[in-house]
Amino acid sequence: MQAGAGQVEELCITGGTVLTMDEAGSLIPDGALLIRQGRIAYCGPTAALPPAADSTRRVLRARGGLIMPGLINAHTHAAMTLMRGLADDLPLDTWLNEHIFPAEKNLTPQAVYWGAMLGCLEMIRSGITAFCDMYLFARQVARAADDAGLRAVLGEVLYDFDSPSYGQIDNGLALTRDFIAELAPHPRLSAAVMPHALYTCSRGLMERAGALSAETGACLDIHLAENREETAQVQKMWGARPLAVLEDLGLVNERLWIDHGVDLNQAEIERLAQAGARVAHCPESNMKLASGVAPLPAMLAAGVKVGLGTDGCASNNDQDLFGEMDSCAKLAKAANLDPTAAPAEAVVGLCTSRGAVAFGLPGELGVLRPGALADVIVLDTDRPHLTPMYNPLSHLVYAARGSDVVHTVCHGRVLMAEGVVEVMDQEEVVAKARQQAMALTGREVL
Amino acid sequence: MQAGAGQVEELCITGGTVLTMDEAGSLIPDGALLIRQGRIAYCGPTAALPPAADSTRRVLRARGGLIMPGLINAHTHAAMTLMRGLADDLPLDTWLNEHIFPAEKNLTPQAVYWGAMLGCLEMIRSGITAFCDMYLFARQVARAADDAGLRAVLGEVLYDFDSPSYGQIDNGLALTRDFIAELAPHPRLSAAVMPHALYTCSRGLMERAGALSAETGACLDIHLAENREETAQVQKMWGARPLAVLEDLGLVNERLWIDHGVDLNQAEIERLAQAGARVAHCPESNMKLASGVAPLPAMLAAGVKVGLGTDGCASNNDQDLFGEMDSCAKLAKAANLDPTAAPAEAVVGLCTSRGAVAFGLPGELGVLRPGALADVIVLDTDRPHLTPMYNPLSHLVYAARGSDVVHTVCHGRVLMAEGVVEVMDQEEVVAKARQQAMALTGREVL
Repeated sequence: MQAGAGQVEELCITGGTVLTMDEAGSLIPDGALLIRQGRIAYCGPTAALPPAADSTRRVLRARGGLIMPGLINAHTHAAMTLMRGLADDLPLDTWLNEHIFPAEKNLTPQAVYWGAMLGCLEMIRSGITAFCDMYLFARQVARAADDAGLRAVLGEVLYDFDSPSYGQIDNGLALTRDFIAELAPHPRLSAAVMPHALYTCSRGLMERAGALSAETGACLDIHLAENREETAQVQKMWGARPLAVLEDLGLVNERLWIDHGVDLNQAEIERLAQAGARVAHCPESNMKLASGVAPLPAMLAAGVKVGLGTDGCASNNDQDLFGEMDSCAKLAKAANLDPTAAPAEAVVGLCTSRGAVAFGLPGELGVLRPGALADVIVLDTDRPHLTPMYNPLSHLVYAARGSDVVHTVCHGRVLMAEGVVEVMDQEEVVAKARQQAMALTGREVL
Repeated sequence: MQAGAGQVEELCITGGTVLTMDEAGSLIPDGALLIRQGRIAYCGPTAALPPAADSTRRVLRARGGLIMPGLINAHTHAAMTLMRGLADDLPLDTWLNEHIFPAEKNLTPQAVYWGAMLGCLEMIRSGITAFCDMYLFARQVARAADDAGLRAVLGEVLYDFDSPSYGQIDNGLALTRDFIAELAPHPRLSAAVMPHALYTCSRGLMERAGALSAETGACLDIHLAENREETAQVQKMWGARPLAVLEDLGLVNERLWIDHGVDLNQAEIERLAQAGARVAHCPESNMKLASGVAPLPAMLAAGVKVGLGTDGCASNNDQDLFGEMDSCAKLAKAANLDPTAAPAEAVVGLCTSRGAVAFGLPGELGVLRPGALADVIVLDTDRPHLTPMYNPLSHLVYAARGSDVVHTVCHGRVLMAEGVVEVMDQEEVVAKARQQAMALTGREVL
């Protein structure tokens, strides 16, 4: 895979309010970052920025905006941008069986690559610099993430029926093993074991997936407890609630990464916290599919490693964590009839410092400090809908949009500057994705 | 008040997909509008656009984007942009008594004007062309709406304690009477009688407000049934549920316009429908303040005249109906555990054709057809997060943002073209609003 094209020896971001997301919640007025070799070398006042080490220093100006950690998307299916708005407002079985699954049967490596590129483009534009992705043809998603310069944990979705990608499950497990090894040396990408869900995977598959996760140390990511119907189905098929099934399989540990976690009881929440397992909270998808409301305040109180995820574009329908933060904060309040639930600071944490814990890079990602990974975004806050700004955290959750992001940097590489994406040809990606969407669905698109 | 500066003899919008929002749900591919004297003169294929009547024709190009009715904001307090993010995530009494009310005590006509100008600027930028506003110093809000070229129903908020605006309530009622008369000849603005709520208004005030509404034919707009606590308080103070109090006062009729309507039972919903009363549904504010979930599907099924409102920026915190539509559709699904609740088409209707019924201009507003008022917006849909587009209605609700609006036209006047607001100096408005916000709150803003 290609190395970091566009990497410069030194990158500076100057003249903005630095929202460090460190434990003290430090804000640095008129602050700056110096970035070398993918990491932050300096984080402090612009006035005290160290002089350039050589002539290749590049400077991005924040112009009084907000300099903050790049956002972490804890669960998505990037290539499903191709199915954005293909079908909405339908009963779940109609949506899945008559629209999503038939389209996915037509998936090709090319479709997944261009769909994932479109997803990466959208993420770069809306300030996401790291994501966790489960999909078919995962090597194509990895190629897209690499081309896009993003950080990602990736996995081939595993289930017992034949996959359009790998065919039979033996191949899927072999592919996953190879994929984990292939990505191990990559500075930004890694792979995980990703069985789809307990209602699509047999005991044999789950056992082999668990063994592979234990052997390689890779995470095991699975859709779990997404709604009450899943719990009922799992109880029928496996004789226990979803988390109890994982417990029986020996999978409740710090490598476990569950997506959704809507139908969890208090004992299950405490068990997840105690085991150090991760949960990707996906409120917009859960709302749109009428899955229910995940117990976010209880998970936060218990100390569960929670991150925030957009889920795929078939059930959201965007890759914008600003909108997701807004929905997250508001849904928790509405569902608990408590206006203090999920305060802005905690919700920004889900996409930054706390999200980094779920992402497996605690203290290295999601925080701006010397030594941390240089995944950074800058928002233009001199906009009518962000005026006045008493408190940046409030605006990030309740007023900002992905379109307020002007610069995006990942691992020290400039992915977008002044709203112009530098790592891909945006028009080509949009055009190719449109073609692939039409080929996949047989539908005309506007 | 100033006439329509910037008005041209003929305005055309060409080369986009026209979403008419007519009863048949007609879409016109490569469509165009011709606008004369504030109304639509032609709506059809670009190829059949009538030739220019004279040399002053102005053309806005849609470039393959969506041409649609301007959005209608059924409830807001535009000047509260000054309190955007001032206080969040707090218990309601702390939020109101320690933050919002103390700031409002310092309100001046200048603060309201510049706050409302900022709100109008934000609405123009996010595609809102009509709004209903309740606030103090309502003449200043009218001045701002007039300067901004927007359509609005406006009212001075009435309650029994002294107002920083009019002092004692006698003056408030006299002001309202004059205000209604003053705005009567205005092509875009009108005034309504706006008692704040049943817990802040006495029986005497409510009776006088009702008489003024009956005498003038103006609407009577009131916050009602916002949450269960209000119902309990009103039951204690008035001895009946909120709608029953209005019924007893003889106010449940087609002039009644209630904001929120969260705590309504089925009989009350049917009564509102039968009376032809209007309801402004404000899901984001209801979520953020933990007010509960309004019974939207039941109101739609009963045929209530429902519109969608952002509410003010102290409880949202933006004036963006795209985000509001997304929250509206998703919240209805989550709260009812029904993925078919509040489908995209119905939700777009709340801000357009159906919203126009609530706004009191059925068939004239919220729909693109010859003869209708020329309140029109154009969205650039050639953007990564709107690709692919199988169905424009889906994208408007689930993927678009206010920042996708490129042209905004109200009553035939161009308010924004190519993302540039033409009716005010954006930098001046942002700067003045910042100054007023600091003066109002005594806080520094970033």
